[in-house]
Amino acid sequence: MADDKKTIVVFSGDLDRAMAALIIARGAAAMGNQVTLFFTFWGLNLLRKPAPPPVRKTLLEAMFGWMMPRGAGKAVLSKLHMGGMGTAMMQHVMRTKNVPTLPEMLREAREFGVTFIACTMSMDVMGIKAEELIDGVEFGGVAAYLGSADEANVNLFI
Amino acid sequence: MADDKKTIVVFSGDLDRAMAALIIARGAAAMGNQVTLFFTFWGLNLLRKPAPPPVRKTLLEAMFGWMMPRGAGKAVLSKLHMGGMGTAMMQHVMRTKNVPTLPEMLREAREFGVTFIACTMSMDVMGIKAEELIDGVEFGGVAAYLGSADEANVNLFI
Amino acid sequence: MADDKKTIVVFSGDLDRAMAALIIARGAAAMGNQVTLFFTFWGLNLLRKPAPPPVRKTLLEAMFGWMMPRGAGKAVLSKLHMGGMGTAMMQHVMRTKNVPTLPEMLREAREFGVTFIACTMSMDVMGIKAEELIDGVEFGGVAAYLGSADEANVNLFI
Repeated sequence: MADDKKTIVVFSGDLDRAMAALIIARGAAAMGNQVTLFFTFWGLNLLRKPAPPPVRKTLLEAMFGWMMPRGAGKAVLSKLHMGGMGTAMMQHVMRTKNVPTLPEMLREAREFGVTFIACTMSMDVMGIKAEELIDGVEFGGVAAYLGSADEANVNLFI
Repeated sequence: MADDKKTIVVFSGDLDRAMAALIIARGAAAMGNQVTLFFTFWGLNLLRKPAPPPVRKTLLEAMFGWMMPRGAGKAVLSKLHMGGMGTAMMQHVMRTKNVPTLPEMLREAREFGVTFIACTMSMDVMGIKAEELIDGVEFGGVAAYLGSADEANVNLFI
Repeated sequence: MADDKKTIVVFSGDLDRAMAALIIARGAAAMGNQVTLFFTFWGLNLLRKPAPPPVRKTLLEAMFGWMMPRGAGKAVLSKLHMGGMGTAMMQHVMRTKNVPTLPEMLREAREFGVTFIACTMSMDVMGIKAEELIDGVEFGGVAAYLGSADEANVNLFI
């Protein structure tokens, strides 16, 4: 156990929850922590490229792909989304307050050295291929997560 | 504190979140950890028997019982449920990928020695009786949870 | 790290999740722990006064204020809300079982010495002013949270 390691399971792909995860991750990294984000289930969608290369998928995999937001720029609020109006309002307010957008937060987190791990089991179930994800992402399963969590002093599930 | 204990509060009864909890629990137990799952609120529904014995309930307790899913086999996705279609798609994909169903994951977790604690306060509020829950479940309140959490090095709330 | 410190990020403003956070916080404080609750995003609404003094807001800030529940007494269930009926049923059952209401739980937690920190970044984005929040709340950002979390042996995100 070390006081300078943190892990967060990013299960949610919602704009608000993802922002909370990234703000904590970025803050911890800026304070000298080694931070690992483990993206799983809906959280995987945050790592999708907006314009991925063509990949082979089954029909069901393709359908899941269409139904889920493609990338952090498409994430929406878990509450008050209101057909897009609430999410747009929140993004407008964030711009006026100089809060970075979610894609910017992801980029900054990686620049701060935060480790991104994409959950391989979720990728398999949801039919998401490695080429569809942004660069700099590592791949791992629950053992990789638990290995990091065992060494961290703060572990969150968001 | 020991490096080989983990606790998870299973607050959610959603299929996706429950799967995440069980996959982490099963993985940790397989790696030699003592894992305690504390089922509370909606998570309690995961422990309900599909065909429970008759129990005495007030009208309100019976109504809550009818409105909530009876057992892990009835859990639905928190997103993309789409009147059942999304949940059925996910379950179909999981079968084709040889991912165990949620009821199977619960059974495997218990076989791996994971401790299941049902939150007695939630049972009281929701009118769920001990006889309605699957076998092998222990009963406890917040003090039991905190006792386990104090000894664990990874504590999650899902 | 000390065995007697706990932190909870209260991200959700839902009645059920807030109750879970407060029950854990109150239980831990009663067992002699120093507990810090960090209220952020929707969780901030739990700290709003039902009848706040007039404050200057932009139109967007005022709109967010109108759309979000004003105070813990207005929190609703994340599931089974059913246009208010499910939430009212739950509150009725809680009264008959002598479970405190959410506003009472908040008051009791503070009487037990639980520290409440309102996330200043969320306040800024949502346009919530300090005068709108209940008394006895401290203010801080992610660094304050991480400082507390580093000293705690149980850290949850709810």
